[in-house]
Amino acid sequence: MGNSVKRLAVLGSTGSIGQQTLDVVRALPARFRLVGLAAGKNIALLAEQIKEFKPNFVCYSSVNPEDEEALTRLTDVKYELLSLEAMATHPQVDTVVIATSGKAGLAPTLAAVKAGKNVALANKESLVMAGEIIMNEAKRSGAQILPVDSEHSAIWQCLSGERQKATQLILTASGGPFRDYPAAQLKKVTVAQALKHPSWQMGKKVTIDSATLMNKGLEVIEAHWLFDMPFERIKVLIHPQSIVHSMVEFVDGSIKAQLSYPDMRLPIQYALTYPERLSNPQLPRVNWDGINHLAFALPDFGTFPCLRLAIEAGKMGGTFPAVLCAADEVAVELFLSQRIKFTDIASLIERTLEEHQPIARPDIEEILAADAWARAETLKLAGGEVRC
Amino acid sequence: MGNSVKRLAVLGSTGSIGQQTLDVVRALPARFRLVGLAAGKNIALLAEQIKEFKPNFVCYSSVNPEDEEALTRLTDVKYELLSLEAMATHPQVDTVVIATSGKAGLAPTLAAVKAGKNVALANKESLVMAGEIIMNEAKRSGAQILPVDSEHSAIWQCLSGERQKATQLILTASGGPFRDYPAAQLKKVTVAQALKHPSWQMGKKVTIDSATLMNKGLEVIEAHWLFDMPFERIKVLIHPQSIVHSMVEFVDGSIKAQLSYPDMRLPIQYALTYPERLSNPQLPRVNWDGINHLAFALPDFGTFPCLRLAIEAGKMGGTFPAVLCAADEVAVELFLSQRIKFTDIASLIERTLEEHQPIARPDIEEILAADAWARAETLKLAGGEVRC
Repeated sequence: MGNSVKRLAVLGSTGSIGQQTLDVVRALPARFRLVGLAAGKNIALLAEQIKEFKPNFVCYSSVNPEDEEALTRLTDVKYELLSLEAMATHPQVDTVVIATSGKAGLAPTLAAVKAGKNVALANKESLVMAGEIIMNEAKRSGAQILPVDSEHSAIWQCLSGERQKATQLILTASGGPFRDYPAAQLKKVTVAQALKHPSWQMGKKVTIDSATLMNKGLEVIEAHWLFDMPFERIKVLIHPQSIVHSMVEFVDGSIKAQLSYPDMRLPIQYALTYPERLSNPQLPRVNWDGINHLAFALPDFGTFPCLRLAIEAGKMGGTFPAVLCAADEVAVELFLSQRIKFTDIASLIERTLEEHQPIARPDIEEILAADAWARAETLKLAGGEVRC
Repeated sequence: MGNSVKRLAVLGSTGSIGQQTLDVVRALPARFRLVGLAAGKNIALLAEQIKEFKPNFVCYSSVNPEDEEALTRLTDVKYELLSLEAMATHPQVDTVVIATSGKAGLAPTLAAVKAGKNVALANKESLVMAGEIIMNEAKRSGAQILPVDSEHSAIWQCLSGERQKATQLILTASGGPFRDYPAAQLKKVTVAQALKHPSWQMGKKVTIDSATLMNKGLEVIEAHWLFDMPFERIKVLIHPQSIVHSMVEFVDGSIKAQLSYPDMRLPIQYALTYPERLSNPQLPRVNWDGINHLAFALPDFGTFPCLRLAIEAGKMGGTFPAVLCAADEVAVELFLSQRIKFTDIASLIERTLEEHQPIARPDIEEILAADAWARAETLKLAGGEVRC
């Protein structure tokens, strides 16, 4: 097709976004070559992926004897073991897909951005924790940050071809499984209920974040950095069907929206093929015969305090967003292990934020220190709250 | 502001689109200079407009003694009388706004396009009757056709920045005042009911065309020519709130939509300021606090045969679309003067199309001849149907 093959490194290849990225590569084999695969602990799946894609570089964080065995059976694949940062900056890599979740995404994102790579960014935490640093580095190095989140991809698509900045970003939120729950009922929510997302298939952490609306709060902070938009001009709208992925309003009052069937492979593919769009028969299409209406509602900040906490932390800036992220990561883990109630997630985060002594315009070390402090603090605060 | 002033000629300045165009000029006085005004029979309003905007060129079609008097009282304005075509092609005119309704728009549109002008096109009939000729002339002369219809403006905005053609256009339609009426009830519809459009303020002809869905049919044909899209890839969706003005689907399944409060001044302004967007406090904004949902439905081709007739005429091509337009213009006039029933509009048009001996790839004379034949034929066919 006359187009050069893009060489990809996928960091977090065994997670939800990582696996869907490999699906896109499978669907468009002429366009991509997977030169790097990095995974966390799911070594069995990583071994399968190595067998299928034969990458030049591999990274994994821990192995047990069985996993070692799976990897050593791959006698026909020669690969070099690299650190995440080395892979993210390797000259043979054109585009780095940051599909790791949590703060593990920060260091390789920053490294890739500094190296001037194209960075397809699905990791929320890196921009939330260190948005100013990353965006400044990208400006300096010329790195392109290609958003993979469906909301930011939607905004990015809507801004295409526009010469002027938007006047408002409207992020849509499914509202999660509990959007119609009264506050009292939320206290009794089980892990199984919280993991049942009505419209998206996602990893556990982001599914819980969707149920608390923390996910949307993190996305507001991301949008602030990605599109250089004041928080006052970022609106959140609940849209349960997840068909409209976000909207952008312009100075003349015109609004553009991006819609699709909710399938993460579309924004992943758009980030990887941009500025081209490619046909991919695997991607389902919106069927208008089955859509009577698209529902919208304003979010309930009282029932879902995480959204408010995130926007407040974003506005306060400094080390507050890093503390927000860390406290949320710990609190969600505590909820998933049934040590706290669903509603404790927000209160734990709020109390951690209250205890925090912030640093304005922190460097990466100060951000990581705030992260470490917040994890310890949240666990400490949870000590008195453990419920089972 | 460093931008040069655009010199506009507004053809049809006393009609609904014409008056709203002058509103936009009033709101953005530093951007535009109205050098030409052309009206039909509303000479009293034209005289006021001349007094306010002091154009260099004026055109009007007929006067009665009182009107003459109103114009002669304008002793302080010196203007030159020009024909529509002369105004549309005058070297002092940068952009021609074709806001006339009916086939009167065809000749000046073609003249302006041949002269390589920017043509802000609100007149549906010119593209429906002679789309192939106009688009070919525009390609030859470099004329830019800037759509003013809210639907085509929406599609145009959604295509901005996209490198590839769309795979589907989705035109939304309010459905008019009778969208939920059963076929039997439509027979008893009065002129007053048909003129009450639920979401748009428009002229009489287009309001009736909205009620029959003929308007949407004409827009499908326009979209076919404007965006070089096969009829099979143009879908119509009923959307009663008129917030989503149309949508575009791309090869990857991503859809972009353009939304706004339903106010024609926005697409008019966009056509005139393109590629810029300008703030205009007169333009209302979508208030999401008041929107619970956006409704969508497939159109009922059985109850609204005009939509089917228009798409069929568009597909058959040749002189059929001109016959469709002419028959519709006559039939709507007969309905407005209470000589036929609402449901007779479609049947009269259908019978006229059936009687037509088409010419493939007609020239302008053949198109105008088909128009004249169709008008006579529709009137003749109506002879046996007059109901009052």
